[in-house]
Amino acid sequence: MKNVAVLLSGAGVFDGTEIHESVLTLLALSRAGAHYQCFAPDIEQMHVVNHLTGEVATNERRNVLVESARIARGEVLNAKSLDVSEYDALIIPGGFGAAKNLSNYAITGSDCTVNPIVAVFIREFALAAKPVGFICISPMIIPKIYGHGAKATIGTDSASAQAFSEMGGKHIDAKVDEIVVDEINKIVSTPAYMLAGSIAEAHTGIEKLVARVLEMSEPHV
Amino acid sequence: MKNVAVLLSGAGVFDGTEIHESVLTLLALSRAGAHYQCFAPDIEQMHVVNHLTGEVATNERRNVLVESARIARGEVLNAKSLDVSEYDALIIPGGFGAAKNLSNYAITGSDCTVNPIVAVFIREFALAAKPVGFICISPMIIPKIYGHGAKATIGTDSASAQAFSEMGGKHIDAKVDEIVVDEINKIVSTPAYMLAGSIAEAHTGIEKLVARVLEMSEPHV
Repeated sequence: MKNVAVLLSGAGVFDGTEIHESVLTLLALSRAGAHYQCFAPDIEQMHVVNHLTGEVATNERRNVLVESARIARGEVLNAKSLDVSEYDALIIPGGFGAAKNLSNYAITGSDCTVNPIVAVFIREFALAAKPVGFICISPMIIPKIYGHGAKATIGTDSASAQAFSEMGGKHIDAKVDEIVVDEINKIVSTPAYMLAGSIAEAHTGIEKLVARVLEMSEPHV
Repeated sequence: MKNVAVLLSGAGVFDGTEIHESVLTLLALSRAGAHYQCFAPDIEQMHVVNHLTGEVATNERRNVLVESARIARGEVLNAKSLDVSEYDALIIPGGFGAAKNLSNYAITGSDCTVNPIVAVFIREFALAAKPVGFICISPMIIPKIYGHGAKATIGTDSASAQAFSEMGGKHIDAKVDEIVVDEINKIVSTPAYMLAGSIAEAHTGIEKLVARVLEMSEPHV
């Protein structure tokens, strides 16, 4: 049975992991007969957004690991505790958490940096040549980890595509039900809610991404 | 296109809506070609549970409507604003939110009461003879709305089954991939995470429940 790590960044599209994308990822893994383990960094969220009004709740503080536990039904590990030898692949769902907590792309654009714990976490998979799936906005992290020429999609948004190129990546436009595969770096990406008009649309691309990541991974020994 | 209301109770299995169950409900509705609209009551949560430790965060307060917006990607309406004529059916996912926020079953057992806003909300569907799907622990509300003899399942848990009977309901044991249908009251229920050992198992029962609720509903005019 393949064992896949899923890196979360909170619980809610505007300040954490996109909830639909993460649950659809877990569903696709479970239906494919894979085991999964959720992880998140033990850091404070950049901020808390009231998802009803869209406004920042200036008096609130929430922790990324603690909030990610809501998606994981309590079964989430600190990203610092990773033993990469136990996992065959990694998947990173989207949501602003990827651009506010895992990195600061939402604030600094192509000058962004990746949280050091997160950078180490993803690099462990890259160095072990284990496949990593990036969903929605999370591919913006790719150039900072894989360096020049890494290929991925964040859909068809030209501003994101330009920023991705400025960081040294090679952006490929893709539709909501498509995946982009970088065979050299073992990276798979799909636009999901960068483009999806419905949860069923997001599901189609994420299911393809999960299938491809599992295909690219070696059998767990 | 059928239009289905989904009643949420927060965002997290231990103090709100079970996140997987709600996303799987939205997915099944979307894939079946139905439109959905999330609702939640504008009330304070009974409490906030740190989902990493399982402990109550005694200093925190969260609002059910505001937290439910995380699952709904911002698109959630106040339960008080329901115009039942716009909807063909209702589905209520589980999670402790159903037993702590929508009702107080988690505290008072078979002596529980349903939040008045929630009771009015569900009764509107019952009175209009529109089907309602109850998932996981949320069927514990049924006897308080539908009265004596209403049939449903919360799986195979004997304590819950006994409490359901004490409130006047007729409990039917069911497996994780099964649904129980009360044709007279137009109620469908499934155990989901009362029994599920994986998200794929929860998915199977929820997909059946959604299909049956849509079948039982009249075409929207």
